[in-house]
Amino acid sequence: MLELVLGAGGLAILFALVLIAVVVHKPSGSPKMVEIAKAIQEGAGAFLRRQFTTIAIFTVVIGIILYFATTPLTAGSFVLGAILSALAGWIGMAVAVRANVRTAQAAHEGIGPALNVSFWGGAVNGFAITGLGLLGVASLYYWLGNPALIIGLAFGASLVSLFGRVGGGIYTKAADVGADLVGKVEKNIPEDDPRNAGVIADNVGDNVGDCAGMGADMFESYVVTLIAAMLLGSSLFGALSSQVLYPMLMAGVSIIASIIGLFFVRMNKGNEKTVWNKFMLGLLVTAVLSAFGFAYFASQLFANWTGIFGAGLIGLVTTILIVLITDHYTTRDGKPVRSIAEASQFGAGTNVIAGLAVGMKSTMWPVIVIAAAVGLSFWLAGLYGIAIASMGLLSMTAIIMAIDTFGPIADNAGGIAEMAGLPEKVRKNTDPLDAIGNTTKATTKGIAIASAALSALTLFASFVEVTGLVTIDILNPIVLIGLLLGAAIPFLFASYLMRAVGSVAQLVVAEVRRQFKEIKGLMSGKARADYARCVDICTRGSLRQLFMPGLIAVLSPVIIGFVLGPAGLAGAITGAIASGLLLALFLSNAGASWDNAKKYVEKGHFGGKGSDTHKAAVVGDTVGDPSKDTAGPSINPLIKVLNTLSIVLAALFVQYALIH
Amino acid sequence: MLELVLGAGGLAILFALVLIAVVVHKPSGSPKMVEIAKAIQEGAGAFLRRQFTTIAIFTVVIGIILYFATTPLTAGSFVLGAILSALAGWIGMAVAVRANVRTAQAAHEGIGPALNVSFWGGAVNGFAITGLGLLGVASLYYWLGNPALIIGLAFGASLVSLFGRVGGGIYTKAADVGADLVGKVEKNIPEDDPRNAGVIADNVGDNVGDCAGMGADMFESYVVTLIAAMLLGSSLFGALSSQVLYPMLMAGVSIIASIIGLFFVRMNKGNEKTVWNKFMLGLLVTAVLSAFGFAYFASQLFANWTGIFGAGLIGLVTTILIVLITDHYTTRDGKPVRSIAEASQFGAGTNVIAGLAVGMKSTMWPVIVIAAAVGLSFWLAGLYGIAIASMGLLSMTAIIMAIDTFGPIADNAGGIAEMAGLPEKVRKNTDPLDAIGNTTKATTKGIAIASAALSALTLFASFVEVTGLVTIDILNPIVLIGLLLGAAIPFLFASYLMRAVGSVAQLVVAEVRRQFKEIKGLMSGKARADYARCVDICTRGSLRQLFMPGLIAVLSPVIIGFVLGPAGLAGAITGAIASGLLLALFLSNAGASWDNAKKYVEKGHFGGKGSDTHKAAVVGDTVGDPSKDTAGPSINPLIKVLNTLSIVLAALFVQYALIH
Repeated sequence: MLELVLGAGGLAILFALVLIAVVVHKPSGSPKMVEIAKAIQEGAGAFLRRQFTTIAIFTVVIGIILYFATTPLTAGSFVLGAILSALAGWIGMAVAVRANVRTAQAAHEGIGPALNVSFWGGAVNGFAITGLGLLGVASLYYWLGNPALIIGLAFGASLVSLFGRVGGGIYTKAADVGADLVGKVEKNIPEDDPRNAGVIADNVGDNVGDCAGMGADMFESYVVTLIAAMLLGSSLFGALSSQVLYPMLMAGVSIIASIIGLFFVRMNKGNEKTVWNKFMLGLLVTAVLSAFGFAYFASQLFANWTGIFGAGLIGLVTTILIVLITDHYTTRDGKPVRSIAEASQFGAGTNVIAGLAVGMKSTMWPVIVIAAAVGLSFWLAGLYGIAIASMGLLSMTAIIMAIDTFGPIADNAGGIAEMAGLPEKVRKNTDPLDAIGNTTKATTKGIAIASAALSALTLFASFVEVTGLVTIDILNPIVLIGLLLGAAIPFLFASYLMRAVGSVAQLVVAEVRRQFKEIKGLMSGKARADYARCVDICTRGSLRQLFMPGLIAVLSPVIIGFVLGPAGLAGAITGAIASGLLLALFLSNAGASWDNAKKYVEKGHFGGKGSDTHKAAVVGDTVGDPSKDTAGPSINPLIKVLNTLSIVLAALFVQYALIH
Repeated sequence: MLELVLGAGGLAILFALVLIAVVVHKPSGSPKMVEIAKAIQEGAGAFLRRQFTTIAIFTVVIGIILYFATTPLTAGSFVLGAILSALAGWIGMAVAVRANVRTAQAAHEGIGPALNVSFWGGAVNGFAITGLGLLGVASLYYWLGNPALIIGLAFGASLVSLFGRVGGGIYTKAADVGADLVGKVEKNIPEDDPRNAGVIADNVGDNVGDCAGMGADMFESYVVTLIAAMLLGSSLFGALSSQVLYPMLMAGVSIIASIIGLFFVRMNKGNEKTVWNKFMLGLLVTAVLSAFGFAYFASQLFANWTGIFGAGLIGLVTTILIVLITDHYTTRDGKPVRSIAEASQFGAGTNVIAGLAVGMKSTMWPVIVIAAAVGLSFWLAGLYGIAIASMGLLSMTAIIMAIDTFGPIADNAGGIAEMAGLPEKVRKNTDPLDAIGNTTKATTKGIAIASAALSALTLFASFVEVTGLVTIDILNPIVLIGLLLGAAIPFLFASYLMRAVGSVAQLVVAEVRRQFKEIKGLMSGKARADYARCVDICTRGSLRQLFMPGLIAVLSPVIIGFVLGPAGLAGAITGAIASGLLLALFLSNAGASWDNAKKYVEKGHFGGKGSDTHKAAVVGDTVGDPSKDTAGPSINPLIKVLNTLSIVLAALFVQYALIH
């Protein structure tokens, strides 16, 4: 049945190509719109090129080290993983920066056509990720016949994902905050105003952060979970067992289900509520169809198939539950967000306190759901069941990425409409899409976090298999020490990312201010701003800020592994997963709820726009920006890199560690 | 040698009585000062009375449950633990609210006399805690001859400590924030202005939160670590072994060392720097003397004494290191705090981001130090070594509490000076003490957190002994699930506490506003504010807000224990310790650094007081208040209650849990 899997992977690529053709053939509007879109494309391209150069250097260096320290096959699959991940990111973004202007053009006709273009554009990202991921894994397995030989692929994907998430995350928020601080606050001009030199960088940021960064993160989770599940199946039941095949079949099934689910999102007329309902419908259809597919193949492959099928089903249900929980805590008109808006009446301090409280509280239910998923799937099908549940959750990556990536495209479309001076009705059609994009971004981020935690746990099980640890006993002080140190890693990592945004944003502020001062006629609209310089500042700044977080991610498992040995490292990984899961949920959800609390006030509550309450709410939103779009989601690749790197180097730790 | 221990405990009580006599015989100043001090005393008394009533109800109910569910001895020692803890808190506070006015009076003569009175007043708290703690434990052991029978004492202390820290923490910040929001922000009158109806409540808060709350926390850590170390010694070497005696001897030795160390803090003239240096000198003298005592008794009791002595030494060194690290991250003129002040130039949002980043970063070194202490002490003397290291850290509680409690006394003295309209020079002498008090508060809080983590780890080892768990294997999904759920508990708990302060503060704001509006002549100084009402609002409000956090702390181990069984609960405790340690450090250090960043700006940097930078810094300080004084430190009793309650109910979990 491996041919079926390869076929499904190919189908995903084919479908992505069809979607690209459909989107690219949509009209792209007036010359002015095309010119603006071109600037965004160039900026995004410039960022990716420079990022890829950095990544390429790292990949070559690490690849050479792996070549000598492990096996040539590991080194080779590592390079392939890095290339595939980069390719997926590049395809997704190349389409997004073309779909944005076409969405703006389609918005002339109504909200429905605009939704369709942006959603299809986003879907390309989803199918590129799942298609390349599944094809890469399945064909390597087809060739080598042993999942243990392709773990390098997972580490390659992890490394690129770390760069993509962190670099993109810093870029997008630095540009956003920097442009706003001068434009909205100092000069009192609207968002996306073409006189603001940072405005193109801001739109580029949406693409490199929310689209390529998120894509790299999900690609990593997808590939990593797939490989980890296969590894586990292999070590428990043999390298050619049905247990190795089944995770790939699940991925294949859900790709087809996602294609069908996609057609349920089509819309002609509607509003925010309708769009959200359409998304939920698409998700539900995909989940139900996937469930049938899971059941069919499980019954074909296994004698006692209900347990394994049940575990997969738990994964699908977990996806839906995480969406609903995240939505509860972050949606604009919900109780938690309103509590933040209310607190804003007493000033910025109470607004921030309320947001921190909502963020902390929002961690409990996702953790309970994840813990229950782990427990139930283990009860149903043992350690392998946990891997299958993770795969169930991640199998829906295609449709989830479509729902996610549509957001930055719609956001960009609104920006282009503003900059190109399109009629009022266009923004009226893109604004609700932008708003719903903010909500879906928060919920898909919740899924990305849950998936990162689950895939890390699956990987962890593989790490244990590889090192031959029989128990990881918390009563062993080495494990306990590792656990404490590991739990601190996400905090240290996040602290650098919170600062990074501020540092780069300050450079943007200085540049935008300089241009307003030095370029004559800019404020009156007679001269044109030098957008490229801001794009360049963001690109270089965010890549420079990558250094420390990258070092922490790569060095900490190496140091802990060589000093405390495999048991200590196992403790550290566990600690990092637990604290990382909580910190990521806390930062992401707090950020999203601050954002929506501001939007709630802007809808006219508690004095509306311009009131003191609004000013207080803006402070929370500023704090939330790096929390939700940089530090929070970057913890995902962090915990996965800790894991994949640990597995890749496991044999060395077993042999050379100081303490055993 | 148990007599020596009892003697040292008695000596601590005696010394506390001498200090009380010395402090109370100091002149208490003008009638106006006495009147103000009386109001603070009454407010603090009213709070403690009502809090004790609540605690008494809980104690009786839980005592009855324990009587039937466990043994009468456990129930009895539980009640004794609760009473001793309450008594220690009451003594410490009763002296603090008398030392404050005498400090203000002494400040007429200079900074030296003011320091002496406030430090001696604070020392009463330290010796009451250590004296009652050591006497309680040692005499019960003297009577029963088995540490396993007195675990109830630890749980009693835990419960009161939870109430004391949480209730006091909410009170102090609600009063502080509430009074400032109306006084400083709306009415533009200085802090501690007698026209502000919330001003007495604010001063009461310093006593019930920073003095009684912190005292209850440290009393708990002290008693709990002592018992846990003895328990471990007992189960490893027998109930009458030297290993059971040694922790008590350590406590006794350090009491005597602390008395001597105390005399090195005396000062005649000086400034902030001198005071800090004196404190460090006192701490160092105490540590060195303790080390000699540890060595002497270890060499008397054990053949291979160097390992056990080494573990105790590690505890002492850990104390000093934690002080230095916390000081680095939170001191006013240090680099981390300056980075927050600099960020404030760009607005409140960047100020908050910078503070969050400093808080996150500040977690790494304390965790490394604690992990190293655990590892080294285990290497030296096994599991028992970890307990001895914890005891080494906690043995210095007396002098640490003296250094800590002097802060709120000096703070109060400044408030009384302001309210009584004392000459300028008095505030000039109390202000530097107040400032240094803020720094010492942050560093002693660091020690309280480290001690809570270490005592929780020691307790954890006892829990494992009691339940007879041979391993706690992370590869067991039940353990893993427990770990994830446990890690979420501190986040949920903290979220309620962050909100609690805001909720009660809003009631204070409403009341202070009402009084300004309805009491004629209040603003012009002709009429007197109704302080008692604000005190009452804070008292009732903070006790009501205790409910949910208290429920979380008490119910979560019960639910997890009965559902997931001892192994799952062990995982949960580990998770809660790891994430609780990080969250407590993060919140406390972020809060302290925001506070000092504001003070740094107020010293004239970046525009000084009244500038936009200052306004931004004030926002961070507001966010920091509940972080550092309510939510952060309340996590200490939380993780200890989880542990002690788990031990007390361990037998039930073993028998009746759903999953094994």
